[in-house]
Amino acid sequence: MNRTHLRALLEDVQAQRLTPEAAQDRLLQFLRQAPFEDLGFARVDHHRSIRQGFPEVVFGAGKTPEQIASISERIVAAGRSLLVTRTDVQAYDLVRQRVSDAVFHDLARTITRQGEDVPPGRGTVLIAAAGTADLPVAEEAAVTAGIMGNQVDRLYDVGVAGLHRLLAEHGRLSSARVIIVVAGMEGALPSVVGGLVDVPVIAVPTSVGYGASFGGVTALLGMLNSCAIGISVVNIDNGFGAAAIASSINHLP
Amino acid sequence: MNRTHLRALLEDVQAQRLTPEAAQDRLLQFLRQAPFEDLGFARVDHHRSIRQGFPEVVFGAGKTPEQIASISERIVAAGRSLLVTRTDVQAYDLVRQRVSDAVFHDLARTITRQGEDVPPGRGTVLIAAAGTADLPVAEEAAVTAGIMGNQVDRLYDVGVAGLHRLLAEHGRLSSARVIIVVAGMEGALPSVVGGLVDVPVIAVPTSVGYGASFGGVTALLGMLNSCAIGISVVNIDNGFGAAAIASSINHLP
Amino acid sequence: MNRTHLRALLEDVQAQRLTPEAAQDRLLQFLRQAPFEDLGFARVDHHRSIRQGFPEVVFGAGKTPEQIASISERIVAAGRSLLVTRTDVQAYDLVRQRVSDAVFHDLARTITRQGEDVPPGRGTVLIAAAGTADLPVAEEAAVTAGIMGNQVDRLYDVGVAGLHRLLAEHGRLSSARVIIVVAGMEGALPSVVGGLVDVPVIAVPTSVGYGASFGGVTALLGMLNSCAIGISVVNIDNGFGAAAIASSINHLP
Amino acid sequence: MNRTHLRALLEDVQAQRLTPEAAQDRLLQFLRQAPFEDLGFARVDHHRSIRQGFPEVVFGAGKTPEQIASISERIVAAGRSLLVTRTDVQAYDLVRQRVSDAVFHDLARTITRQGEDVPPGRGTVLIAAAGTADLPVAEEAAVTAGIMGNQVDRLYDVGVAGLHRLLAEHGRLSSARVIIVVAGMEGALPSVVGGLVDVPVIAVPTSVGYGASFGGVTALLGMLNSCAIGISVVNIDNGFGAAAIASSINHLP
Amino acid sequence: MNRTHLRALLEDVQAQRLTPEAAQDRLLQFLRQAPFEDLGFARVDHHRSIRQGFPEVVFGAGKTPEQIASISERIVAAGRSLLVTRTDVQAYDLVRQRVSDAVFHDLARTITRQGEDVPPGRGTVLIAAAGTADLPVAEEAAVTAGIMGNQVDRLYDVGVAGLHRLLAEHGRLSSARVIIVVAGMEGALPSVVGGLVDVPVIAVPTSVGYGASFGGVTALLGMLNSCAIGISVVNIDNGFGAAAIASSINHLP
Amino acid sequence: MNRTHLRALLEDVQAQRLTPEAAQDRLLQFLRQAPFEDLGFARVDHHRSIRQGFPEVVFGAGKTPEQIASISERIVAAGRSLLVTRTDVQAYDLVRQRVSDAVFHDLARTITRQGEDVPPGRGTVLIAAAGTADLPVAEEAAVTAGIMGNQVDRLYDVGVAGLHRLLAEHGRLSSARVIIVVAGMEGALPSVVGGLVDVPVIAVPTSVGYGASFGGVTALLGMLNSCAIGISVVNIDNGFGAAAIASSINHLP
Amino acid sequence: MNRTHLRALLEDVQAQRLTPEAAQDRLLQFLRQAPFEDLGFARVDHHRSIRQGFPEVVFGAGKTPEQIASISERIVAAGRSLLVTRTDVQAYDLVRQRVSDAVFHDLARTITRQGEDVPPGRGTVLIAAAGTADLPVAEEAAVTAGIMGNQVDRLYDVGVAGLHRLLAEHGRLSSARVIIVVAGMEGALPSVVGGLVDVPVIAVPTSVGYGASFGGVTALLGMLNSCAIGISVVNIDNGFGAAAIASSINHLP
Amino acid sequence: MNRTHLRALLEDVQAQRLTPEAAQDRLLQFLRQAPFEDLGFARVDHHRSIRQGFPEVVFGAGKTPEQIASISERIVAAGRSLLVTRTDVQAYDLVRQRVSDAVFHDLARTITRQGEDVPPGRGTVLIAAAGTADLPVAEEAAVTAGIMGNQVDRLYDVGVAGLHRLLAEHGRLSSARVIIVVAGMEGALPSVVGGLVDVPVIAVPTSVGYGASFGGVTALLGMLNSCAIGISVVNIDNGFGAAAIASSINHLP
Repeated sequence: MNRTHLRALLEDVQAQRLTPEAAQDRLLQFLRQAPFEDLGFARVDHHRSIRQGFPEVVFGAGKTPEQIASISERIVAAGRSLLVTRTDVQAYDLVRQRVSDAVFHDLARTITRQGEDVPPGRGTVLIAAAGTADLPVAEEAAVTAGIMGNQVDRLYDVGVAGLHRLLAEHGRLSSARVIIVVAGMEGALPSVVGGLVDVPVIAVPTSVGYGASFGGVTALLGMLNSCAIGISVVNIDNGFGAAAIASSINHLP
Repeated sequence: MNRTHLRALLEDVQAQRLTPEAAQDRLLQFLRQAPFEDLGFARVDHHRSIRQGFPEVVFGAGKTPEQIASISERIVAAGRSLLVTRTDVQAYDLVRQRVSDAVFHDLARTITRQGEDVPPGRGTVLIAAAGTADLPVAEEAAVTAGIMGNQVDRLYDVGVAGLHRLLAEHGRLSSARVIIVVAGMEGALPSVVGGLVDVPVIAVPTSVGYGASFGGVTALLGMLNSCAIGISVVNIDNGFGAAAIASSINHLP
Repeated sequence: MNRTHLRALLEDVQAQRLTPEAAQDRLLQFLRQAPFEDLGFARVDHHRSIRQGFPEVVFGAGKTPEQIASISERIVAAGRSLLVTRTDVQAYDLVRQRVSDAVFHDLARTITRQGEDVPPGRGTVLIAAAGTADLPVAEEAAVTAGIMGNQVDRLYDVGVAGLHRLLAEHGRLSSARVIIVVAGMEGALPSVVGGLVDVPVIAVPTSVGYGASFGGVTALLGMLNSCAIGISVVNIDNGFGAAAIASSINHLP
Repeated sequence: MNRTHLRALLEDVQAQRLTPEAAQDRLLQFLRQAPFEDLGFARVDHHRSIRQGFPEVVFGAGKTPEQIASISERIVAAGRSLLVTRTDVQAYDLVRQRVSDAVFHDLARTITRQGEDVPPGRGTVLIAAAGTADLPVAEEAAVTAGIMGNQVDRLYDVGVAGLHRLLAEHGRLSSARVIIVVAGMEGALPSVVGGLVDVPVIAVPTSVGYGASFGGVTALLGMLNSCAIGISVVNIDNGFGAAAIASSINHLP
Repeated sequence: MNRTHLRALLEDVQAQRLTPEAAQDRLLQFLRQAPFEDLGFARVDHHRSIRQGFPEVVFGAGKTPEQIASISERIVAAGRSLLVTRTDVQAYDLVRQRVSDAVFHDLARTITRQGEDVPPGRGTVLIAAAGTADLPVAEEAAVTAGIMGNQVDRLYDVGVAGLHRLLAEHGRLSSARVIIVVAGMEGALPSVVGGLVDVPVIAVPTSVGYGASFGGVTALLGMLNSCAIGISVVNIDNGFGAAAIASSINHLP
Repeated sequence: MNRTHLRALLEDVQAQRLTPEAAQDRLLQFLRQAPFEDLGFARVDHHRSIRQGFPEVVFGAGKTPEQIASISERIVAAGRSLLVTRTDVQAYDLVRQRVSDAVFHDLARTITRQGEDVPPGRGTVLIAAAGTADLPVAEEAAVTAGIMGNQVDRLYDVGVAGLHRLLAEHGRLSSARVIIVVAGMEGALPSVVGGLVDVPVIAVPTSVGYGASFGGVTALLGMLNSCAIGISVVNIDNGFGAAAIASSINHLP
Repeated sequence: MNRTHLRALLEDVQAQRLTPEAAQDRLLQFLRQAPFEDLGFARVDHHRSIRQGFPEVVFGAGKTPEQIASISERIVAAGRSLLVTRTDVQAYDLVRQRVSDAVFHDLARTITRQGEDVPPGRGTVLIAAAGTADLPVAEEAAVTAGIMGNQVDRLYDVGVAGLHRLLAEHGRLSSARVIIVVAGMEGALPSVVGGLVDVPVIAVPTSVGYGASFGGVTALLGMLNSCAIGISVVNIDNGFGAAAIASSINHLP
Repeated sequence: MNRTHLRALLEDVQAQRLTPEAAQDRLLQFLRQAPFEDLGFARVDHHRSIRQGFPEVVFGAGKTPEQIASISERIVAAGRSLLVTRTDVQAYDLVRQRVSDAVFHDLARTITRQGEDVPPGRGTVLIAAAGTADLPVAEEAAVTAGIMGNQVDRLYDVGVAGLHRLLAEHGRLSSARVIIVVAGMEGALPSVVGGLVDVPVIAVPTSVGYGASFGGVTALLGMLNSCAIGISVVNIDNGFGAAAIASSINHLP
């Protein structure tokens, strides 16, 4: 019920086409009406793609393959794009039985099916990753950015201990509209990238490392304390979140 | 030395206007030439406003008033906008003697002087703050966003324990292009705001609180673990950094 | 031995029905007598239901199915209600052989058998949970509150990033006498609920999340620092404890 | 605007006493209308005493004496009880000039003025404290509980290393309706008290101690891990919060 | 009231010298009677020296000079030894006015007055300290052990980086009955000492150090993880506690 | 080579029975000679039982059954008592093949064989444990204390939430010469025990608990901050270490 | 392209043997040219052995046996020495099929094949380890130092609780050019060694221990706070890194 | 007493110039004799410059000016170089009265007086610092390296966010024999430097930063997790320690 509906309702009351009782009922019903429906184990929010620019994402961790498949089916049935994160090939096998053209991304541990509901982003989202072990998180970001309608450029294995590899790709850094930087261990790559470009940089710490890397905490802290300007940070291993932010920036008119 | 200069130099060699020795010297000199000058206690980087879209910012903490004043003078003399953060009225008194139209922002603990060098942002940067005690950080963000050429909207005292205050301002949230959310204690405001809008949200934890707030760590962790999509985080009390990111987003073409 | 028994004993001495030696023995024996018995691996405290309003609860973690079954049998034989927490279907299979009408709650990982010994609570205990992954803890609380004689209302999947889902249920929040709020990740839900109601709110952080959620520490800290008034907190994943507190509040005359 | 007002408005439209345009305006205005007013530096929420059973509390830390005095004046002018926490005698001197019968509680660092707006609680709130150094927090709780309309019983210096002191007061523990337990160092007192009573126990860790007490973290963790049933915990040194919860329990009908 | 008193009372009842009512009153009174008295701000426990082998110790931190002086006076008046820890010369000036022969130990920050109530220990308590900066804690231990009746041997500046200094004193290590080892920084001295002797070693971490010494946490952790057998640990800077344990060991018959 | 040997050697030189060269060789050889032998993977220190009052203990964790068996065989062959800690029944099966009368303690996860080399302690070592889940650590302490020649008294399931269980055993507490207190969760038992007795108390935190118990850190911190006097602490789950200290105290002449 | 190449190119332009266009292309191409090649999942850096004195090391953790084998083959094909760390016998079986003379070091969990490309170090690298459980890390260091061309001396099982073992080997300590000290638990060995020698000491904390050893953090902190001069520290369990530093020191001319 | 002295002594016994008793006394005396003397508050170790290549360093923090002056006087009187760290101008004023040519280094907070006892190092120690606020630590390292006989090169304000500043100085990096890298905040500079050179790099984290820099912990962790090879780390702000290590490397023959 938007402003137009409200006006129409009140005019109906004025025109005696609607009693005050009926009008009150409709108003109260609207205020109580929740724009979501219930699957039993999870409420699927159909209004969210309008409010937030993207449909419901299925966070696969902790869900059974059966749950993932039935949620996926419902989302695709509603004509929307599908993204399942932190999942595996067992879930995919079940999803594929109901969504035949769903795609599984092994390294990114995601399932996707592109719908028609996603407007294209304006520029390129570049995803830089420091080391080989950071690739699962980088790919989660890349797949997410892709399904959200963004052109994606991947720049991998450009850790700060081998600066020439990064500097050799200055051109690609410069032509991106948003940059996601994925790094574990000491998490220094975002600072170096941030010093080279003037577009927004989103840093993703990964749990790559051992000993005093504390499962990504060291990289997280390093990124939060970056001496470069223009860097913001998401949770450890949160490639999806970084891509969602990058996409929202890349879709700004 | 850009591509054009390089071509001209080589043509000069071809045309015998320049000996190979002289050309080699110029090339090597260029490669060694650093686009910065030296003030003794700090290198001022005049190329940075071109590379990063904003002039050198003076981080006042740990600098003497005399140092702040002399750096400020040099920056203004170069025709650029001035922003000194984490400073106080003692430094301002000295700065004002050399930069007569510098302005002191008491709550934000910043000194500014608007120059001609900053292009305007495209939309509004809204700054939401949870409580009264968060205002110094919120104001640091607001002043920074302003001096960087952005239109700023302030929405203060809208903590999650009094939701109706925030919901009453839904219109202002919706009309912003980027939102900075400043909160201490449990740091829950960004999650609520992030669920209401679809523009990028930059969360700034503050050191407001006591006991198990651990100087802002609790708010920081809460924001990093936000269940809302589209939120990235900066260091505790880093209002400046949040505004710099917001500005870089707001200046994207 | 209560005040009446003491008086009777002393009167027996006065009336020469009892020698001082025998009276002394009885007194000393009482002071030494512990109101518990010994099962070998655990002392079962039969007086506790009188002192604390509820029978012995069996914390299943770390106990063998055989141990759980024999303790359960003893408790039921004493005519009391049974609650086994943090258990599984293997233990249940053994318990059922000795307590044929015991019930297993899969999601809550608990075994119960309702006895006659539990007085009804005065109002409703509402249990709100932020996300699907929080349900095992929420259900542990719900089953515990139920076996303790309370009417239970469940309000699930009402995380703060989708505020309208929560606000749509304001009526149920308002009609509860005590509210348990279960949330992981940033743990913001109790603050929002606490701002909407004026009854006691007990917050239960869960270990749901990854990276900087640190196994529930972030949610725990967030809840301890809540800006809402009237919120107290229990240990991570301690649905049982929250329900026990809620029940003691709900049973206050 | 409640259900009755809404019906009246719609009947006015039906009766042509109000145009649809005017009705729409009023409805929209109501939805936007926030039940708070603005003091410039803080929004005072006059509806809160109705929603939450107690008026606005002024958290004194970080506010100037002048700010505290002007907020206090406004609250008293509205006919409500006043409670300022974490304040000092400087602020009190200013408050007293505007609220002549305000009282300063030195040990509790609070200012109060009892109004007529607080209904009495049903039973006694007992406040137990482990050591002398815990008294400021215990007194903050005691003063808060008092101004909120509760009968308060103080039981101080009953640390667990001298159990006989506590056991000697078993009667007072048993006759309370809610118990607040304040302790620093290892924070063991709530476990012992919780084992002796069957009413709700609210534990307040204090920052008392040195070395590995970590400013109250040890006591906080100890309380969260209490082996006694029925204990919930608030933030370190949060005597006010504990009392607010105790009061909400003690005011349950 | 001991066993003899109880028997006498019961015989009085038998002999009709006492009514059951009166006997009941006396019994209940005894059970309630606490063997302590009240100074207003602290309960002084006169029975403790019997139960625990040492009189009440006054922890000076957080107490006013006036409070320290009045407690001290009361303790000395009761004919007992006096020990005030974590105090200063201001408190001492006041104590001396009431206890003329009290002694102030500058480095140890303690006040003492030896009474007649302390039995001598059996052997020597040796106190080893790693560096100059550890001496305040070592001296607190030394003064405490002395006032508790123990012969004290001091072995200072024997850090592990200069092993020959320690090895040169092997004889003194061997002739002690209990050894207290005080060390900051990496806290390695107890491991080395523990490998050289077979008597109990009590390790005291100190807050000496900077950076990653974390106010004594590193030393504490090092001592808890000692590879030597026979080492137990007390809180950071707790020289008093270590001496109390050493004394209780040294007084074992 | 002791003082007597040295004197004899020098007299041999004087009496020309030994040349200075040969005497020098013997002296240097002695200074270099290490009183240990080498098993390849571990040096077994035969002098240690003399220096430290107890033979080499085999820490089983991380050693293969084969390694444990061969070290055990060597120790028994040397006529000494055997103690293997943190081991399992697989290792025991192999040990028994070589040391036929070795005993396996299931709950304590230890293997022992009593030798003739251990002098009896003077009094009783009492081991108190808070809960059922603490028993493996308590039994490790009990078995260790036993093999080291001490009389052991076990007092289990006496957690502070059921104080009457502990108080009912006051007599056993009082008759011990050293007390080991084993507790997880909040670790409050040592404070209560320490307030009841005046003998040394050694506190052992256990990793029992969940959530904010942090694998025993909460119990450890609680014990280090005990408000009772006379308590020292060992590492988490270190039942062996506590018993070794208790034994060294109990063997003091 | 070095200085000579640059001069030649410019002379070619002068001599009209090269057009400015072609010269510009070559210059730009050189600036863009990266001295590395791409294997798909990892860039192998052939220039690194020149810049850093050692070829690419393969960090085995997280790589499949197949990946390890193909990288190894490429490295050996380039005529360089091979070192794979943190690997296992499964990877080795595959590597051996392609590099027939590769060697597997079981305890060190490394694969090596000595090439001709490593110049010998100047002195001996001594590796001291505190306990048996530290050997995997010590051996990783030893194997790494060996493959990097250093003479290696191993001094194992010399923990500080048995000082005589270490002191008996003073001669070997004194004759080393660099010393690596590997220790877990309290990590005290580097301090003792550092006090005995005047060559650089590199300390490697290990994750050996339990409870409050926190997976090596205690040893790490102890080493960072060493009271001995001349000690620097690497990450927990980083035997490889310590050896690489030792080798770079030992190869200094 | 060296090998020659021992031989002479034994020959004296053989020649009857010395009785066995006297010889035994001398030998035992030697074994007990410690090569240090005692100043009352600190043992000055005159043998250390021989054993460790540098004289006693005075750690000024926590020492009174008077103590610093008297130790300094003694050191200089012994003909040795003087270095006082973490001191101030008050101490210097007193030192200068006794050591007239002592020098105060303001930024480095050190006092030095060069003696004749320090041999020159072989190459240059380069000290790189990331930002202006890191200079006190960098200068402590520079002054220390200088007084220890090393040639020092300073390269300041070369943080990773402005890479061109660092790359422009590649020549100076390449010509150093050891490099000390000083950085706060995210501590990324050592990784970048370590990737550019093949000499040993010693990383010094500084406490520069705010919020989640945690007083240098973030920089420390970042450096320990560096992806570059050849980096070892010292304690936070430990410029002195880094220089001592660099010097020991630079003095290797």
